[in-house]
Parts: sequence; C-alpha cells; structure tokens
Amino acid sequence: MIRYTSSIEKLIESFMKLPGIGRKTAQRLAFHILEMPKEKAEEIAQSILDARNNIISCSVCGDLTDTDPCRICSAKDRDPSFICVVQEPGDIMAMERTRQYNGYYHVLHGVISPMDGIGPNDINLRTLLTRVSENDVKEVIIAVNPTVEGEATAMYISKLLNPFGVTVSRIAHGIPVGSDIEYADEVTLAKAIEGRRVI
Amino acid sequence: MIRYTSSIEKLIESFMKLPGIGRKTAQRLAFHILEMPKEKAEEIAQSILDARNNIISCSVCGDLTDTDPCRICSAKDRDPSFICVVQEPGDIMAMERTRQYNGYYHVLHGVISPMDGIGPNDINLRTLLTRVSENDVKEVIIAVNPTVEGEATAMYISKLLNPFGVTVSRIAHGIPVGSDIEYADEVTLAKAIEGRRVI
Repeated sequence: MIRYTSSIEKLIESFMKLPGIGRKTAQRLAFHILEMPKEKAEEIAQSILDARNNIISCSVCGDLTDTDPCRICSAKDRDPSFICVVQEPGDIMAMERTRQYNGYYHVLHGVISPMDGIGPNDINLRTLLTRVSENDVKEVIIAVNPTVEGEATAMYISKLLNPFGVTVSRIAHGIPVGSDIEYADEVTLAKAIEGRRVI
Repeated sequence: MIRYTSSIEKLIESFMKLPGIGRKTAQRLAFHILEMPKEKAEEIAQSILDARNNIISCSVCGDLTDTDPCRICSAKDRDPSFICVVQEPGDIMAMERTRQYNGYYHVLHGVISPMDGIGPNDINLRTLLTRVSENDVKEVIIAVNPTVEGEATAMYISKLLNPFGVTVSRIAHGIPVGSDIEYADEVTLAKAIEGRRVI
C-alpha cells in the first residue's frame, strides 16, 4: 500500500487501534487533527494523558473515577439495600439516565467467558462478596449484557450469593420500547413471553 | 444531562471535536482508552503531539509532510510536465493509489467559496502560479471535488493560467465503475453523457 509520511502514518495507526475505526475513518480523523489549530490538537492529546493519569478504579465498586471512593460510592443519599452489578463502567451512566435506580453499583469489568480464558477470578467479583457480607444489602440486581456469557455470569453470581440470603434479580429482557414486534428476533420475543406480567 | 467524572468528561468532549464522532461514539472511544494499557494510551497521545510537531506544509506543493520539500516534490523520477491540483492533502493518496499519474501535485487546502468568505487569496494558489511560470509545465490537471465551489475554483484557475499557455484539464465526472446507472443521480448522469467518448 502507498503510505503517508511516517508521522501521519503513525497517527492513522493510532486511531485504528480504537474500536469501530477503520483505515478510512482513521485517515479522516488524522487529517482533521493536522488541519486543526495546534493548541486544539494538543488539548486532545492532553485529555488522553490526563484521563489515563487521573482515572483510577474505585476501591469499593470498581467504577472508573478520579476520587476514591467514587462519587456514587461516597454519596450518602442512596439506598444501601441495593447493589446493581454491571459489566462495564459505561453501563452505570445508562442505568443512571433512567432515574429509576437509587442504589449503589458494582462493576465487574467483564463477564465469565471460558472460551476467552476469563474465569471468575479475572473479573471484579471478590469485593462484591465482601460488600454483600459486610453491609446490609437486601437485593443484588444483575444488569450484565444479555449474552450467553452474561447469563452464565448472572447464574454464577446468584449461586455465589446464595449463602448470604440476599435476593438476586436480573433486569428484564423483552421487546424494546418503541420497537416493532414483527421485527423482534425470536430469542428476545421468547424472553418477552417468558417474562410476561399480569396487568 | 448526567455527567461522568471530569477527566472522563473532558476526554469524551475531546473526541467529540473530531469529525463524524457524536457523544455515543466518543464515550465508547473514551472507555476504550481508559481500559487499554497505559503505555498504549500514551502512544496515541504522543502520536497526536508528534504529528502536530513534525508535520509542516511543503513549501513547493503545500502537502503535509515531515520533510521540506515533500517526498513527491523531491522525487526525481516524476514527470515535471504535469501538475495535478487537489483540494486537500488526503486527495494525493487517492490519486497515487490509481498508479495512473506520475506528475507532481499542488494542494489548495480548500476551494474558493464566497459564501464561507474564502476567496482566491485564502487558498494555496500563489505558489501554483510561480511553479507554472518557472517550470516547464505542459498540463495542469484540476482534481478538486465536483461541487459548485470546486467547479468555480477550477474555472478560476483555468482563467488564471490562461496567459501561461499551459493546458488546463479537469478529471472526468461520470458513473462510478461498478455502480448502477439506474441509481445514478441526474447530475452525475448528465455529466457522464456530456463527457461521453467515442469507442
């Protein structure tokens, strides 16, 4: 392939390391960086460095934060009876946006996936046990993604927490609001039927 | 809107400054940066800084380069009779990939666009005149994008170069190879008819 000057090529390759960015998009981003004012480009680079230097894992929930414990773990106005277990840090904001949940969170940073060599010890599970055993938790809501690995992880956590006498629940799977039943996939529709509620 | 910790928020906003990246994609990129090994993230930041520090405009053609003159302008095996005028630095690679052109280039860094307040003096035109007058150029091929502004710029350059007695040509517009005439837009199809060639 005909290549650009080395600095441009390196910048393109850097962008290609990011998810969902192929060579064409990376080129477009790289040229945009090269055409923008130098200070703006430096700001972008600096924000990457700052984020990597300032952001740590919350020692309580495992969320990415710049204070330890994180903003949510140190909030006093939340309901300590609930812990919502999510797969990735980004999922917390999705839950928060619903404004339907006022408990605490626990971030697994992955799910159990024997195919990829990820076992229970490779995800952030141990501190969850500590939190459940040491605090007055009534319900653990599992909100990992509805994949085979997610389901397996949910089952594993449920068994793990069994001795503590807490309720372990799983968020409902079903037809997304605003979508069309005609185009729903069978698995989702089956889950929706299975999870039907009396009205 | 519910916001992330400040460093994460800044990183998201940085990515949102790039073209074609909205908030959701920016979030995905930011979390990817935060989950990747620290050295890798630093490499990305460094490649942005390096590119901005090393890349200059070629004093001959205006292309982005880390040597002056650029690789193409300092190549001795190219045909000095041809200068291909392009709109943006990225267009040079598109031309090079065809392997059909072996002349030199000239990058305008934009097109004349009175609506956006961009006049002939705001694009890299003056050095083009110098190059044409001082070298033995036979043909100037204009390969700016086929927009109204591109057409106007092509006409302007053509008139500007008239006194120098060089041929000024425009790359052909027509039906893209592999596409379907049925779905071609009228303007492109009209250009294709207008530019028909005897076989």
